Amino acid sequence: MTAISKRCSAMQASPIRKLVPLANEAKARGISVYHLNIGQPDIPTPVGYWNAMKDSLPDVLCYGPSQGLLILREAISKYYSRDGITIDTDEIIITTGGSEAVFFAFMTTCDPGDEVICFEPFYTNYNGFATMAGITLVPVTSNVENGFHLPSAATIESKITDKTRAILICSPNNPTGTVLSASELDTLSSIVQKHDLYLLSDEVYRDFVFDGGSHFSTLQLPGIEDRVVVMDSISKRFSSCGARLGNMISRNKKLMEAALKLGQARLCPPTMAQYGAAWIYHHLTADYYTNIQTTYQNRRDLLIRELSDVEGTFFLKPEGAFYATIKLPVKDADKFASWMLTDFDLNGETTMVAPAAGFYATPGLGLDQIRIAYVLSDEKMKKALMVLKEGLKVYMETVN
Amino acid sequence: MTAISKRCSAMQASPIRKLVPLANEAKARGISVYHLNIGQPDIPTPVGYWNAMKDSLPDVLCYGPSQGLLILREAISKYYSRDGITIDTDEIIITTGGSEAVFFAFMTTCDPGDEVICFEPFYTNYNGFATMAGITLVPVTSNVENGFHLPSAATIESKITDKTRAILICSPNNPTGTVLSASELDTLSSIVQKHDLYLLSDEVYRDFVFDGGSHFSTLQLPGIEDRVVVMDSISKRFSSCGARLGNMISRNKKLMEAALKLGQARLCPPTMAQYGAAWIYHHLTADYYTNIQTTYQNRRDLLIRELSDVEGTFFLKPEGAFYATIKLPVKDADKFASWMLTDFDLNGETTMVAPAAGFYATPGLGLDQIRIAYVLSDEKMKKALMVLKEGLKVYMETVN
Repeated sequence: MTAISKRCSAMQASPIRKLVPLANEAKARGISVYHLNIGQPDIPTPVGYWNAMKDSLPDVLCYGPSQGLLILREAISKYYSRDGITIDTDEIIITTGGSEAVFFAFMTTCDPGDEVICFEPFYTNYNGFATMAGITLVPVTSNVENGFHLPSAATIESKITDKTRAILICSPNNPTGTVLSASELDTLSSIVQKHDLYLLSDEVYRDFVFDGGSHFSTLQLPGIEDRVVVMDSISKRFSSCGARLGNMISRNKKLMEAALKLGQARLCPPTMAQYGAAWIYHHLTADYYTNIQTTYQNRRDLLIRELSDVEGTFFLKPEGAFYATIKLPVKDADKFASWMLTDFDLNGETTMVAPAAGFYATPGLGLDQIRIAYVLSDEKMKKALMVLKEGLKVYMETVN
Repeated sequence: MTAISKRCSAMQASPIRKLVPLANEAKARGISVYHLNIGQPDIPTPVGYWNAMKDSLPDVLCYGPSQGLLILREAISKYYSRDGITIDTDEIIITTGGSEAVFFAFMTTCDPGDEVICFEPFYTNYNGFATMAGITLVPVTSNVENGFHLPSAATIESKITDKTRAILICSPNNPTGTVLSASELDTLSSIVQKHDLYLLSDEVYRDFVFDGGSHFSTLQLPGIEDRVVVMDSISKRFSSCGARLGNMISRNKKLMEAALKLGQARLCPPTMAQYGAAWIYHHLTADYYTNIQTTYQNRRDLLIRELSDVEGTFFLKPEGAFYATIKLPVKDADKFASWMLTDFDLNGETTMVAPAAGFYATPGLGLDQIRIAYVLSDEKMKKALMVLKEGLKVYMETVN
């Protein structure tokens, strides 16, 4: 049999999805599985999304513009103006999910062999796009002890080489829930200016900041307008993961021209979803955003309450998004997460979590950590966490 | 300003879309433009597509499986069984457009620096995906004089090096309309076996074969089951370019596992469109396929009638798809196509075509050729061609 490419052979399977076969086997045995392993929101997609699509049905489902429909780019521009951020429609390219925005950001800023600094643990799918783009993600480790905030500028700068082209951040963060402070962003701004780098900023969770805090976008950093590339998505904000719509924003015209060439190669993002998304961006009021913020904040609080009394677990209060990366008293969280699916149930129910090691690039880190996505209703969350706690107890007594 | 990646700087703009700004300027001057430049079918998307979507609206627009919804993979399997081709649902990955299928095929079969042999002129967007995958497309030239059929095995084999990983074909062909014969496919089969290569086969136009001919799929070639990767799309077959749904098919299990890892990185293809596509594949009858075949064949015949009397033009009868690559009596078809938009109109109307040079990889080839997509109604096609002929006449008298 003729060989598969080395780069694909070397790719890791998604730590978010790799336990899915075990979950399916559990379900086949009649066990009900609470999914805390994947960031799939349970909040209904706004009904206006569907109505706008139904109102826009064409005779022929045509290609749209490669940079995305103007009505959607206008709507996104208006969405940013709400926060006092001015973005021109030509500074936006609609992408097929936030995923494609990440890929385009890597492709336009880096050549093969170039390096991008990122902070581990990080959204594991960056790895796949790094492989596709032929670049190397160079990890700087952040720690559970200080809530995964950034290490010192000196630590970050120590990783910069002549191949470094960009620093990649995600705030509010997946998988940690950490929100970078204005001061941390200022530090990054100084570093990218000093070393002539791009700042690639995944702001997918920008509307999920808790405790009255507000999100400070890299688009608001003065003096590095040409260096900032924002990657965004409607998946989490509007509970529409299956739409596959995101966008890439940059004020760097040459970079956007380059991204558009990539966009032309794949012709266009999905057409109908853009009508739905444009309607949402135009019409949702502040209430909507307040509501999702409150909902997830309450769930975060529930998570903290439920896990605070579990011996050996540790995490600081997540400041945003809907994730927490949690240290457990186990040696191998991968084994524990698998065991929960293969060997444990409480009255026919079990809980699925994502082992965190896959979110680290440095081998051996995060082995005792899991990521939880708090994307279930309060009632389900309570049950899911109760099952998880009971499972952990049994595991510690019998396996670990 | 910090630099853009070299690979993106080096990418060519799409020859199909690069004249769009000129077309927009013409429209702004009040001129009506016939679009023969892009393969955007005008036949209505089957109404069942929309109804199936409307019947499937969920509360939450969730991620689907990375390999695509099972109902769609089952429907595609059934579609192939119509032609006596047995494809298991695990041998299909649903992709975001045929575009992503091409990218996945390159990524899974090639490492950076590897080579893929293709036959120029070829679908220009292969270039973009080759850039993204870091591979080199090595052109073997086919000629207008013999209707762009394959050159000899010896000519093809002369391009094989130790970096060659695959041969890429497209039949029925974009941009030429050529349909490879069973004998040509047998030749390719022998070559890929002899040299341990993959055969990457773009079969997007497999339902568009004229004059009673039938499409012979690479999936039917005995002995190279593990070497064949088919790239497909619903865009043309079901007039649903904006859905962004395609699929990749291979019986090579390791290759499909590798492709699934790429699929997991980008999470999933668009969810709602898959419900629509599944319905279409399941329910459309032979009448539908016969009808689109007849419609495009009639347009092909109209094209031949209209252009047969134009001195200096040359092309053989296209055997399928809905394109023709036509030699004109001009020196620079790019200049002519631009001139049609900037300097010519006939009673307020002009015609847009795609210069063919961009479909060649070898510099200097195809300069006197254009690609026409015959995707307009008979009435519009007649007018578009009349305007084109008149424009060509004026151009030859005044500019060329």
